[in-house]
Amino acid sequence: METLWDHRYAQRTQRMGSSAVRELLKLTESPDIISFAGGLPAPDVFPVEEFSAACERVLHEQGALALQYGATEGYRPLREMIARHTQRYGINITPENVMITSGSQQALDLIGRIFINRGDRVLVEEPTYLGALQAWNAYGAEYVTVSMDEDGMKPDALESALRSGPKFIYVLPNFQNPTGATLSLERRIKLIELADRYGVPIIEDDPYGQLRYEGEHIKSVVTLDNEFRQNGEAGYRGNVIYMSTFSKTLAPGIRLAWVVAPPEVIRKLVQAKQGADLHTSTFNQMVAYEVAHGGFLDRHIWLIRRVYGERRNLMLDAMDEFFPKEVSWTRPKGGLFLWGMMPEYLNSADVLKRAIAQNVAFVPGAPFHASGGGTNTMRINFSFATPDKMLIGIERLGKVLREMVAEKR
Amino acid sequence: METLWDHRYAQRTQRMGSSAVRELLKLTESPDIISFAGGLPAPDVFPVEEFSAACERVLHEQGALALQYGATEGYRPLREMIARHTQRYGINITPENVMITSGSQQALDLIGRIFINRGDRVLVEEPTYLGALQAWNAYGAEYVTVSMDEDGMKPDALESALRSGPKFIYVLPNFQNPTGATLSLERRIKLIELADRYGVPIIEDDPYGQLRYEGEHIKSVVTLDNEFRQNGEAGYRGNVIYMSTFSKTLAPGIRLAWVVAPPEVIRKLVQAKQGADLHTSTFNQMVAYEVAHGGFLDRHIWLIRRVYGERRNLMLDAMDEFFPKEVSWTRPKGGLFLWGMMPEYLNSADVLKRAIAQNVAFVPGAPFHASGGGTNTMRINFSFATPDKMLIGIERLGKVLREMVAEKR
Repeated sequence: METLWDHRYAQRTQRMGSSAVRELLKLTESPDIISFAGGLPAPDVFPVEEFSAACERVLHEQGALALQYGATEGYRPLREMIARHTQRYGINITPENVMITSGSQQALDLIGRIFINRGDRVLVEEPTYLGALQAWNAYGAEYVTVSMDEDGMKPDALESALRSGPKFIYVLPNFQNPTGATLSLERRIKLIELADRYGVPIIEDDPYGQLRYEGEHIKSVVTLDNEFRQNGEAGYRGNVIYMSTFSKTLAPGIRLAWVVAPPEVIRKLVQAKQGADLHTSTFNQMVAYEVAHGGFLDRHIWLIRRVYGERRNLMLDAMDEFFPKEVSWTRPKGGLFLWGMMPEYLNSADVLKRAIAQNVAFVPGAPFHASGGGTNTMRINFSFATPDKMLIGIERLGKVLREMVAEKR
Repeated sequence: METLWDHRYAQRTQRMGSSAVRELLKLTESPDIISFAGGLPAPDVFPVEEFSAACERVLHEQGALALQYGATEGYRPLREMIARHTQRYGINITPENVMITSGSQQALDLIGRIFINRGDRVLVEEPTYLGALQAWNAYGAEYVTVSMDEDGMKPDALESALRSGPKFIYVLPNFQNPTGATLSLERRIKLIELADRYGVPIIEDDPYGQLRYEGEHIKSVVTLDNEFRQNGEAGYRGNVIYMSTFSKTLAPGIRLAWVVAPPEVIRKLVQAKQGADLHTSTFNQMVAYEVAHGGFLDRHIWLIRRVYGERRNLMLDAMDEFFPKEVSWTRPKGGLFLWGMMPEYLNSADVLKRAIAQNVAFVPGAPFHASGGGTNTMRINFSFATPDKMLIGIERLGKVLREMVAEKR
């Protein structure tokens, strides 16, 4: 039945695209499916007891504050904690550099809102995080893409893409979603030099930086940018906007992330957030602060690293055993995802259909490609499934792949 | 110090306006100020014990679900509860008519996102809710305004405004923010008839509908629209989008509100929300459901009505006693606000400055006027201040007003 709303949608709704991720998330809700599709943390490492104790403390000691409206920029002690934490990595930021958002998705949306005019080019990795494309499509972004290898964006491709005059560069340097690739230190420095030379600022999206299972931590782009401009005094005022989240280290269900940026950018983001959702839940911010401060977060991340590192190893071993030799995949040093590349003659959407019939799921790689292509690629999550399910799931998926390779060859 | 971001802001940032409400909310944080400025519920009626028990139950019984990612449209049992609750008012909606948002501000933002093209006209009451103007300014809305009296929008003014071809009508029928006015039943029916005749759909924003302190409940516009089109079967498919919130009945700090709309509109809103913040906190939705279901919410609203009703009476009595006869004000039958009108020769921004020097605050009325004007008006909140503070605050404000009237006269 028609309503008066039907012919009144704004033009931008046509650019919002279909809700591929959402439809896929729905699949993972069926208990029969072994899902490597979502970017879901393992629920068995959620700090439920700590959350429970924190809720009790926050409500009984500061209930009137926790349940009331709060400041748009976020709960001050949480912003201070994030500033202190970031300082450990060698960059003197202050709380005025920090804004709390309702998950990283909101940070991406607000960045799009304050920077993207319709038709503006954004420089992205190919492939890149689907959620960023979804957020920025609504503001009419166009994309210029830079190809990657296991060390991240290729500098030559980056330089020629910068010549097209993008508004900003979007990069996920650590254990990238979707490929699992990590930008090398050399390339980070090259990225900062090129960005400076071409006058193009950088968005650094770092949800997984602390989830490293082997090798040494590489300095973040924002830290290197700060060193590059020898900006020693307190308060970061460089050309990088850094984003991270509590979704992978505490829990995604509380929807808490943050942005680090020059104070002028924070002020614009706060103004945009005021119109978008007024502020992020005061209660959740106070509970997260209670859980995270005083050293618990560090201990908890150590636990997550061990659990996810073991799952990654198990998945890589299982893929070595069950996947056909025609399929290759990345071996990420951290994060939640690895990236599978099938022969050109296989389409991952077809593979997914067959896989779901066998009760196993992943995400087809094509939607992560801003310039099209990637129909033979797949994103596989290794954090969510328990070890026994993971083995069964990879065996099933390997069987589907072997069959489809045999049929097509 | 300049950064590369400085000259890269999108055009729409210029329409975001200054953050008047936010700056004013900051004022209320000073413990010395008696604030009638915010739209803050009284913290002394927050159901802290119930929240605490609900957190405990949710985390211990369903912790893995509560802390995980959730569906964009919201937690199903909460959507079902809202559908059941809405049915009590005589309209058979289903959960497919309901989406959960991160506060009503997000509902306003998402509505702007899916409906407003730059330059579209939106029909609003004069004055109207500031947060709606802030949300829609970012999408380039223009406004056509309809003047009001104590029974809400005047039908003649409404009809001539409809001739300008607005995209939709935005109305706050119950105890409007900022005036406290309530749209009469006759005018609600007239609104629906006129909207139908001119083919213009309606947004009904109803945060305070349950907070009535005298008189009888008047059917909501969405219910009347459903009766008007004799759409008896399950599932609302009319021309009204209805919004409400838990901010005034449970607590604003959990950031939970909802939209009731035809299923096609809900699908578009869900798509927009996916790009905006993926989903609203699963934990908060489950806790709110635990607190609200099973009859607690009805009992709690009864308590809030009693407390706020007493405060309204106390404030009206105090204003009768302390305000100069040159100032008049509304006598709302519910909600959180009343509206003060000063002589034309007084500017409420000047009054506010003097008031703050006396440690009392309110919100100047001008920013609520989409077409300008209203410089001699003020919004006064009567829910937040405790009775003893309220008396002191109104006495102080009355003294400032008497002095300024005397000076200018």
